[in-house]
Amino acid sequence: MGRRSKQAEHSPEEIREMALAAAKRIVAKQGYGALSTRKVAADIGYAVGSLYLVFKNLDDLILHVNGSTLDDLHNALEATAVRCRDPETCLLALAREYIQFAFTNRALWSLVFEHPAPQRRPTWYQDKVARMFEMVEGQLRGIAPERAPKDLKLAAHALWSGVHGVSVLGLADRLDESGRAAAEKLAASLVTNYLVGFKQKTKNRG
Amino acid sequence: MGRRSKQAEHSPEEIREMALAAAKRIVAKQGYGALSTRKVAADIGYAVGSLYLVFKNLDDLILHVNGSTLDDLHNALEATAVRCRDPETCLLALAREYIQFAFTNRALWSLVFEHPAPQRRPTWYQDKVARMFEMVEGQLRGIAPERAPKDLKLAAHALWSGVHGVSVLGLADRLDESGRAAAEKLAASLVTNYLVGFKQKTKNRG
Repeated sequence: MGRRSKQAEHSPEEIREMALAAAKRIVAKQGYGALSTRKVAADIGYAVGSLYLVFKNLDDLILHVNGSTLDDLHNALEATAVRCRDPETCLLALAREYIQFAFTNRALWSLVFEHPAPQRRPTWYQDKVARMFEMVEGQLRGIAPERAPKDLKLAAHALWSGVHGVSVLGLADRLDESGRAAAEKLAASLVTNYLVGFKQKTKNRG
Repeated sequence: MGRRSKQAEHSPEEIREMALAAAKRIVAKQGYGALSTRKVAADIGYAVGSLYLVFKNLDDLILHVNGSTLDDLHNALEATAVRCRDPETCLLALAREYIQFAFTNRALWSLVFEHPAPQRRPTWYQDKVARMFEMVEGQLRGIAPERAPKDLKLAAHALWSGVHGVSVLGLADRLDESGRAAAEKLAASLVTNYLVGFKQKTKNRG
């Protein structure tokens, strides 16, 4: 696309959204290595300078790309959560959805977890990460409402880091059987067995 | 270090070992992005051409760096396994050791899991990966010797992918509390609760 005339045709907010969408397309199609501010600017038909009016630098653009990927992931998980019945079935369905998202959005998903984060990520970004664990925590609370909030939080982080590990190794094909079906089987084993321990501890305390 | 005289002072096997050690030092100190065949050659005082006599290309060098890191990890895990008492204590100790290795060999460990693997990794490399899961499988067999080998294999992969996930997110500081202590706590929760489910299933079948 040619460069647009100097008189901006879009508001800064519109340029920002266009740039984010273009960056996501580039990462999804060509991988993270192909991403540059020059390429994003060319794709939306603006000069690189226009991009620097809405993003500080490439790292800032990537942070927002990752934030947008976390939104997509959240939407996918929420759509699953509203359909499922009991907390245990929901956690199994959420694990499957998490793995499916990772497999269908391979490059964007990897970028969220592999790109070195700035020393301190902004609050809006941290909130997007926390939201995912909170969804898991909510299901665990459904299983054991009497457990202390800090126990539920620990369990949510432990269990979901585990599901994350299955996705990571599944994607990297470091697992013995390859592909998504194998990853789903492992995640189901992880969730089911973990919940037996989680529920037993709850029973012993109750 | 200056370039050595054309008459090789070392055997190809020695050059190979020196190059691997140099590559590992570079990754550990400066990160993966700093690794190049030029830099490795300069570090050991040989021309780049000499490096290409023992490694096909940078990817081949990285594959061997990763193989060597997997050896280091295996040695660390084995040293832990010979010291621990019962299988459950051993699995908890192995999880702690795995996390400690990841935290103390951050860049090298990440390279093993983040570097895109060639379509088909050579058997010698696959064996090094399999060996880690087999160690976990051996401990699970100690807990439930009557379980079918394929069940033990599945459980080992599920549990250790989980521990891996805790390490990944712990290192990336994507976990709520930061640092190794938090990762260790999550791994302990994962292993302990998973084993309750694993043992219960065993009992129900026995």
